[in-house]
Amino acid sequence: MESISLFTFVEAAAVVVSSVSGMIKAAEKKMDLVGAYSLALLVSFGGGTLRDVLLNRRPFFWIENEVYLFVVLFVAIAFVYVPVFHKIAKLLHTRSNTVEATGLGLFSIAGLFAALNMGMPLFSASLMGVITGVAGGVFRDVVTNEIPVIFRYTGGLYAVASFVGCWVCIAFMFLLDAAFTGFIAGAASIVALRLMSVYFGVQLPRPLWVKDEE
Amino acid sequence: MESISLFTFVEAAAVVVSSVSGMIKAAEKKMDLVGAYSLALLVSFGGGTLRDVLLNRRPFFWIENEVYLFVVLFVAIAFVYVPVFHKIAKLLHTRSNTVEATGLGLFSIAGLFAALNMGMPLFSASLMGVITGVAGGVFRDVVTNEIPVIFRYTGGLYAVASFVGCWVCIAFMFLLDAAFTGFIAGAASIVALRLMSVYFGVQLPRPLWVKDEE
Amino acid sequence: MESISLFTFVEAAAVVVSSVSGMIKAAEKKMDLVGAYSLALLVSFGGGTLRDVLLNRRPFFWIENEVYLFVVLFVAIAFVYVPVFHKIAKLLHTRSNTVEATGLGLFSIAGLFAALNMGMPLFSASLMGVITGVAGGVFRDVVTNEIPVIFRYTGGLYAVASFVGCWVCIAFMFLLDAAFTGFIAGAASIVALRLMSVYFGVQLPRPLWVKDEE
Repeated sequence: MESISLFTFVEAAAVVVSSVSGMIKAAEKKMDLVGAYSLALLVSFGGGTLRDVLLNRRPFFWIENEVYLFVVLFVAIAFVYVPVFHKIAKLLHTRSNTVEATGLGLFSIAGLFAALNMGMPLFSASLMGVITGVAGGVFRDVVTNEIPVIFRYTGGLYAVASFVGCWVCIAFMFLLDAAFTGFIAGAASIVALRLMSVYFGVQLPRPLWVKDEE
Repeated sequence: MESISLFTFVEAAAVVVSSVSGMIKAAEKKMDLVGAYSLALLVSFGGGTLRDVLLNRRPFFWIENEVYLFVVLFVAIAFVYVPVFHKIAKLLHTRSNTVEATGLGLFSIAGLFAALNMGMPLFSASLMGVITGVAGGVFRDVVTNEIPVIFRYTGGLYAVASFVGCWVCIAFMFLLDAAFTGFIAGAASIVALRLMSVYFGVQLPRPLWVKDEE
Repeated sequence: MESISLFTFVEAAAVVVSSVSGMIKAAEKKMDLVGAYSLALLVSFGGGTLRDVLLNRRPFFWIENEVYLFVVLFVAIAFVYVPVFHKIAKLLHTRSNTVEATGLGLFSIAGLFAALNMGMPLFSASLMGVITGVAGGVFRDVVTNEIPVIFRYTGGLYAVASFVGCWVCIAFMFLLDAAFTGFIAGAASIVALRLMSVYFGVQLPRPLWVKDEE
């Protein structure tokens, strides 16, 4: 029971943060309200929906909790038409890496929890966390005709951050039996790793095909 | 029973109209027969298949009614190789907005009906109508490397038209208990709204981020 | 029983060949390890996962056989960091059509077998083979922001090769009751047709809209 309410909290936070990240992109592309709402839905629900399809889990979390649809709608209306949120969007634009990293962290852990609840083996469950975390952003980039960050060489640590964070969370859950601490520690390591990578240029070792060129 | 046969009729009409809309795009991109057939399948079955995956509804409508696969194949062969259809395609090219709007209208209502039949709450069902209506076009634009119209600022009313039409249909069904009239009225409002938007420039209020630039 | 182990063998071969085809693309785009691994997963598991989603077949073949995830990971690490595999990748780069054709052949037949095992009618099953065969490549091209080969006029026989090969396999299975020979003959005809098309320019008859321009 407790793990379910923790799970709901993680998911709700992930939805709000991701819809804001969708709005930043919508502003950049000058979308109208519907484009912005659709993009926010895609970023917020894309990863979780893909996870639920892969796990064959029904009803979807956004049908079970229809309120999510309205939350994202209010976020979209606010950012598109309400001046004070418009100012917030401008401020957040320069912080878009932080917003995105937070969404990545929350959704990765939410995906991991859902997969573990369904009884998946650990390695598959951690990959499911990564898929849930990155899919929203991949969908967003595909529909706006950009190459998703995960496939760009200059993208930095992204899926790796999610993967490491999932295993941090797994370690807390199974070694220390501390799910809540695991969630905090896992999500925090994802955000930290991602931002370190962006601001200090931490990357995976260079592939041989890149070295070739130098 | 009656609602099922109405549903089948709506779906069949939607498949034919959408496959023609796929052929117009295929002609524009100079695809060969297979490209044209695949694109027509994607536009015609993409939205309904996504709907069935989301609703966990099996078998898919195009497996239940395998004849649809052949209908689309005949449409593709006709437009690719038969001179008289080739002439029709050229005429339709200048009417591609009308063809697309009709497909949007029919598939939105078909998606709405399917979701209501599965017992979804009204708001989710109307969103399912919108998803079914717009998904085919989104897939088509993604595989031909364009930004889907729904995410373009200059796209005009598209998802909104679908959403409004779904609620027109819902009103007729639940207030007047008239499913057939609801289908006609709903689909007609979608087509009308979409075309009004294209030809008279009806749009949503400008977002703040667009006003900023002026 | 025997048909199951044949099926597993076909699937395993398809996964390895496809992950190598993913690495060739990853090298071309200078991706890092995670990008390369993700792309290899998408090419190797994309088609089969789409097939399993469409067939509502669970667990996915890569969850049932978690070892596949590690096989692809080893392929990715090898090609990204181990000099001898890096040299192999360079050699394969000039043979990328052959690698891709082999993946197409193996996955098409694997998709066909899975669909027949689920009791699908023949025509739908052969289309499921085509979808399984081409989907990995379509996903790969969509995320790397290219138009999938199946939708390009100059692409040559691709889905057609897969379709013909599926029917060759069906003929052997149902007329001669020879599943293994059918698999060999089917996959071989797909590879042969695809390569003939690439190297000798075999194509479908030109559509009317292409003739118009000449």
